[in-house]
Amino acid sequence: MTKLNDNYTQLKDSYVFRQVNEKAAAFASEHPDLPIIKMGVGNTTRPLAPTVLDALHGAVDKLSDEATYTGYGDELGEAYLREALSGYYKNEYGVELTADEFVLSDGAKSDTANIAGLFAAGSTVAVQDPVYPVYVESNTVLGNRIVYLPCTEENNFVPTPPSEPVDIIYLCSPNNPTGTVATHEQLQALVDYALENGAVIIFDAAYSAFIRDDSLPRSIFEIDGAKQCAIEVGSFSKWAGFCGVRLAWTAISEELRVDGVSLLERWRRRQLVMFNGPSNISQAGGLAVLSEAGQRECAEIIDYYRANASIIRESLQAVGLTVYGGENSPYIWLKTPNNKPSWEFFDELLENTQVVTTPGVGFGSEGEGFIRVSAFASAETTKTAMQRIANQSS
Amino acid sequence: MTKLNDNYTQLKDSYVFRQVNEKAAAFASEHPDLPIIKMGVGNTTRPLAPTVLDALHGAVDKLSDEATYTGYGDELGEAYLREALSGYYKNEYGVELTADEFVLSDGAKSDTANIAGLFAAGSTVAVQDPVYPVYVESNTVLGNRIVYLPCTEENNFVPTPPSEPVDIIYLCSPNNPTGTVATHEQLQALVDYALENGAVIIFDAAYSAFIRDDSLPRSIFEIDGAKQCAIEVGSFSKWAGFCGVRLAWTAISEELRVDGVSLLERWRRRQLVMFNGPSNISQAGGLAVLSEAGQRECAEIIDYYRANASIIRESLQAVGLTVYGGENSPYIWLKTPNNKPSWEFFDELLENTQVVTTPGVGFGSEGEGFIRVSAFASAETTKTAMQRIANQSS
Repeated sequence: MTKLNDNYTQLKDSYVFRQVNEKAAAFASEHPDLPIIKMGVGNTTRPLAPTVLDALHGAVDKLSDEATYTGYGDELGEAYLREALSGYYKNEYGVELTADEFVLSDGAKSDTANIAGLFAAGSTVAVQDPVYPVYVESNTVLGNRIVYLPCTEENNFVPTPPSEPVDIIYLCSPNNPTGTVATHEQLQALVDYALENGAVIIFDAAYSAFIRDDSLPRSIFEIDGAKQCAIEVGSFSKWAGFCGVRLAWTAISEELRVDGVSLLERWRRRQLVMFNGPSNISQAGGLAVLSEAGQRECAEIIDYYRANASIIRESLQAVGLTVYGGENSPYIWLKTPNNKPSWEFFDELLENTQVVTTPGVGFGSEGEGFIRVSAFASAETTKTAMQRIANQSS
Repeated sequence: MTKLNDNYTQLKDSYVFRQVNEKAAAFASEHPDLPIIKMGVGNTTRPLAPTVLDALHGAVDKLSDEATYTGYGDELGEAYLREALSGYYKNEYGVELTADEFVLSDGAKSDTANIAGLFAAGSTVAVQDPVYPVYVESNTVLGNRIVYLPCTEENNFVPTPPSEPVDIIYLCSPNNPTGTVATHEQLQALVDYALENGAVIIFDAAYSAFIRDDSLPRSIFEIDGAKQCAIEVGSFSKWAGFCGVRLAWTAISEELRVDGVSLLERWRRRQLVMFNGPSNISQAGGLAVLSEAGQRECAEIIDYYRANASIIRESLQAVGLTVYGGENSPYIWLKTPNNKPSWEFFDELLENTQVVTTPGVGFGSEGEGFIRVSAFASAETTKTAMQRIANQSS
């Protein structure tokens, strides 16, 4: 008689972004005359870079010719792209990792979720609160215990090391949802904790391309000792508009050992057993992102979103609201006026301005009283949304 | 202090296809003058269908324009493609499943591995022996107990129902590696067992497009009662040459319940938590496969591989070898002469004919004394390989 994985019953309601979409869809069907502006899900909207488009077409063309057609590739991702990432880490971050220390996948969501399976069920996992729900839900399903590290205005939304022993620490910087970026010193304290306590850090760097302040670390491996305790997950989604194209990587140093076992080897094994590599078309696009022209063109698109983020910050501040993030990040963390509950303010904004945001409480209890505003809409749409909010507030 | 998932230590050596590749690569570097023919991994080699190529280019073009660009789509796969699959099942198999009963993914390997996580750790899982290693390895990592159902010449490589209670049964038909196809009667016996014993069948139909004998079932849902006990995993990889493009689906009826819980809802939840949908480019290609022109063009490519399979069957039989499969399948299951161990015959073929196959024992102990020969090479290469084997045997 089949028995189910009971941990699924521990999951809360449905995924916050889905709830947001359902509320927005319900509003739209009730008010077909009121055009909605989506600033909820962190979904890219700009066309891909020309260099990347050429590469994607080129990859499709290759599949049209017997001489260049390829089927299954390397389950760990093509060597050419892992080599290119290795070069990128060296040039951009001064970090030495070999091509074999990168494993490619279809997305950072998949990786941050699946990698938890390398650890013993029942592990204690620290996450930031508020938190990207994937870390919590994937670990809940595995039967792990979640410990929340409060991220509040008081600590500028970057946690101090856990006060109790934990096995795994998820960190996301630039942070989703708060838009804040951890400094070298803050990350060093967390790396030092991990080294002293034998914990492993899973560092989600999906938004690193938004960091333009040279004093801020873009890779966990810029921190002393991180190679011995940290795993980094990176993504082409926000960097190059690949949210739909699907391509990401996980970087693990051969130096990272748990009980003498290489976590890199374990992760490679996991992917050999349960994955078959990302799409060959997507990987060709990824290589183009890493070219000189691709990096330049993608940086221009990031600049566009960064300009939106500035507009959002300034517009919201101009109407007297308190905001965080949005400087080296596409997310603005808005404190609701008069400590209104997140969903109440979400509903008000939807009702009065038709601007869809994401309720902070959907990311954890410390997110109550905040909403997340995304800078991924078009510049025009962003301005329209901010104008609506300004009109509503005046 | 971090603890690892110890189940990983139960995994055997490395993945058989990787071992095969390593042996082939080693031979090639020692004998650069002797061109190798790969008939090992089941990797497609024909260019994609024209209709599909047009759709892939079209999807890339959409990403070039702000008006048509899309980022994240539905985590469960785009509705248009799930609708098309629903229509395909109805037209082709007479099976009624709604679009919501399909969940799209990057591959059947991922799905057959990941879906095991829906069940309680420690479940008893029956697999065919020989078996596609992914089922065994993914369940081993989850801490499940594996029971082997012998598939031998005596039962024409299709198992009878388990003689002991099991929770989950993996079935693959057309079978990888033996190339044999289960009949309606054989599948009905297994479905009846599952219904009577409260077991769940995970049916891997990745090779169903190779079935041209109308008397053979192409979907488990053609079997009475299957909706109440079976999950089907299908794939565009072998059907449409998407091994590298990456696109697959899992079909679960709303009627399938375990302890009153809908497995469809659990699987949807799993994908919402841990996956973000397949590539939007791949999905556009998948829709084209399902078009009338796409189906016709893909069938022509399947015909090409089927003709190769016939050549392999006949050539091997002509030199006195015993073969199975290869009639409604791209795989020929070759009995080694004089009961030679699989790896010994693999090495002999590599050494004497430079034809790379897959040792049957790599798929399980019942595969000892067999090798798998794949029909996915070009017609010319297939003929050359068979000529080399004929010369060697004469």
